[in-house]
This record gives sequence, structure tokens and C-alpha cells, in this order.
Amino acid sequence: MRFRNVKNKEEILLNSDYVLKDGQLLKGNWQEKFNNNNPIYIEIGTGKCKFIFENALKYPSINFIGIEKFSSVLAQGIKEFENIKLDNLFLVNDDASKIEDYFDKEIDLIYLNFSDPWPKKRHFKRRLTSWDFLRKYDNIFKKDCVIIQKTDNQELFAYSISSLSKYGYIMDEVCLDLHNDSSIDNISTEYEIKFVKEGKKIYRLKAFKNSLK
Amino acid sequence: MRFRNVKNKEEILLNSDYVLKDGQLLKGNWQEKFNNNNPIYIEIGTGKCKFIFENALKYPSINFIGIEKFSSVLAQGIKEFENIKLDNLFLVNDDASKIEDYFDKEIDLIYLNFSDPWPKKRHFKRRLTSWDFLRKYDNIFKKDCVIIQKTDNQELFAYSISSLSKYGYIMDEVCLDLHNDSSIDNISTEYEIKFVKEGKKIYRLKAFKNSLK
Repeated sequence: MRFRNVKNKEEILLNSDYVLKDGQLLKGNWQEKFNNNNPIYIEIGTGKCKFIFENALKYPSINFIGIEKFSSVLAQGIKEFENIKLDNLFLVNDDASKIEDYFDKEIDLIYLNFSDPWPKKRHFKRRLTSWDFLRKYDNIFKKDCVIIQKTDNQELFAYSISSLSKYGYIMDEVCLDLHNDSSIDNISTEYEIKFVKEGKKIYRLKAFKNSLK
Repeated sequence: MRFRNVKNKEEILLNSDYVLKDGQLLKGNWQEKFNNNNPIYIEIGTGKCKFIFENALKYPSINFIGIEKFSSVLAQGIKEFENIKLDNLFLVNDDASKIEDYFDKEIDLIYLNFSDPWPKKRHFKRRLTSWDFLRKYDNIFKKDCVIIQKTDNQELFAYSISSLSKYGYIMDEVCLDLHNDSSIDNISTEYEIKFVKEGKKIYRLKAFKNSLK
């Protein structure tokens, strides 16, 4: 991913009420933080935050947490959306691999939008639908496991279907051209808008795994 | 599907050693017909027979049966390939819905190549990966269920992934652009060659379900 450096990015994150500086301390207690019993949806790789802010605005009875490792990207999102005041959204500036440090059996749904496709075979383990990550997700889901993935990358999408399926997920919905399918209520990310303008197809799946807890 | 009528099609089928006139009588006894214990692979919708003949030629230790409902199409295939003499291949001129009349717990793999996509929702049951057909396949598979599907139709492919997955199949392999994936050993059908020339992508999956027998 290429992105421009943002001056004062650390300051922007520090001054934002959305960005939690001590998110790990909330592990197991996010519902208390949100002060309600609503479901919690997270987006791993929340980028410039358009998707997560629009979702939080549209669905006030769902709690949202956006996780993004690149502080520059997150700072851009905050600059753009900071004026919107929402009490059902927080942001975390950390890497996906640390997800178990933040959550413990309290997440209802994971969004994976336009994740890094990691095209080289030796890097497949870093894909967010690899078994290494699916094992981590098992520990953060409250009960049933639900993952919604969108990507423009056909190799990542094909890999995800196979990886999720072999791990025990059922493919609940599959779409190979999201922007020509009116049946799915879609909120676009920044990347998605760009890709669709370039004529690329957007792939989407919803995968489901029964709780074994 | 559009196809030209073939004069004397009935005569061509009648005179071919490949086309079985009494296939239903072999139900449960196909291995005796082949006179060996090799696995039996079938192609439902075998069209002009290129795929099934090339497979039978390439894999002499596998038995193949091609099923095609349109006698004109099958007659064209026979005219083209009749001069090749193979003892590991037979053809059947009947509809997919009749498959349980022909086989009983004796099939190892089903190929579904460029099946009719039946685009209207009220016709989804006619798709060869609908639960109506998957139930029939359960009765003809010898032990484990293995289906390999190829199609250029993205709606049919997305539907198949979801339908197979919900029925209990695991997506063993998924490819969204078969002709740009050198890892899969592929034999093309007539349609496939035409579609690839037109620049269409070919989707392929291999789905697996453990035997419950």
C-alpha cells in the first residue's frame, strides 16, 4: 500500500476521542466501554475510516471498532470524519496480529475490506483469512463466527473461500460482482470507489461458523 | 444453448459402440461393464464430447461416462471422435435429472462443465449444483463426494459455492481465472476454448464432502 505521510499524525491520533490509547486494557470489557449490550462489529484494516464511520452513522444500535496499523492512514481518516460525533465507534492504531491483546470472546462480526493480498506463497500466512488468523478470531468471537470480506483481488478471494471452508466456515453469501448486485446493501470504502471507477470487479463473501463454545 | 440439428442423429447414436441404449440396466454394475475396479468419473452435460474423450485417452486407468441430453450435440461429438477406440469410456443420451436411474453408489467424481446457468430465480432448482441435484448425487457417489465445476458464468459460480458449502461440501480448490493459473492440469471443453478466445474468465472449483455411508 502506498500512502502519503501526514504531518503531526501522532498528535492527531493523540488528540482524537475516537482513538483509544489503552485499548488492550479494555480486553473483555468492551460492552462496558460502549455502555450497552449491543453487538460489536470490528473492521480489521480500517484505512481512511469511510466504511466504519458510515456504518456507525447508519447503524446506531451496533457498536463499531476500526483497527488500522498505519498511523498516517488513520490520521487522514480522523481529519476527515472527526467532526461527526458518534458514541458507537472507536478506533485502534495497531496491527491485526495483536487482535487477541484487545478482545476476548466479545466480537459479533469481522469485516475484512481490501486487505493486503500478500501474493507470494511464503507470505500466505499473513493473509487475514489464513488459518493463523482464523485461529485468533476464534478467541475473539463472542459466539458464532461471522466474517464479511470484500476485495478486488481474485487470488485472495479464491484463497479465502478455500481457507475459510476448510476451517469449517460455511459460505453464506458469495458475490463476484458486488456493484452489479442490487440485492446487497453496500457501504463502499475509499479503495472500493477507486477500483469500481477503474472498471474492476469487487468480490464479496459472508462466511459463517457455528459456535463451538 | 443453440445448436444445429444433425441429420440421422438417431442413427449415429444407435450405431455407436460408445452410446449405451440400455444404461439403466447397468445400475449398480458399471464396474462389471468396464471389467475392472478402476474409479468411475462422470461428466453431466458432456456436449460435443471433447472433454470426456481427451480425459479417457489421457487417463486409461480411470473409467469415464459422459451424459448428454441433446442427441444432436452428442451425435456431433460421436462423428468427431468415433475413430478413437477406447475401452474406458461410455456415453449416455439422457437428462441429468434421471441420474439415479443409471447409478447406485458407484461414482467417484462428477464433472460439471459449463452447465446451463438458469438465470431466473424460479429456475435455480434446475441448476446442477442445487440441493435437488446434490441430494441425487449423494445416492450415486460410491463413498466420498467430489465435484469439479467449470463455468464462465459468475452468478452460477457464486451460487454453486454457497449451495455446495451449505450442503456440507468443503471448497478444496477455487480458481477465478483458470487459464491464468498454471498450477491446475486442465483439459478444455469446446465451449471453454471459445469463451477464452472471447476474453472471458473461466471459474473452477473442486468441492469435497466426506462420506456419511
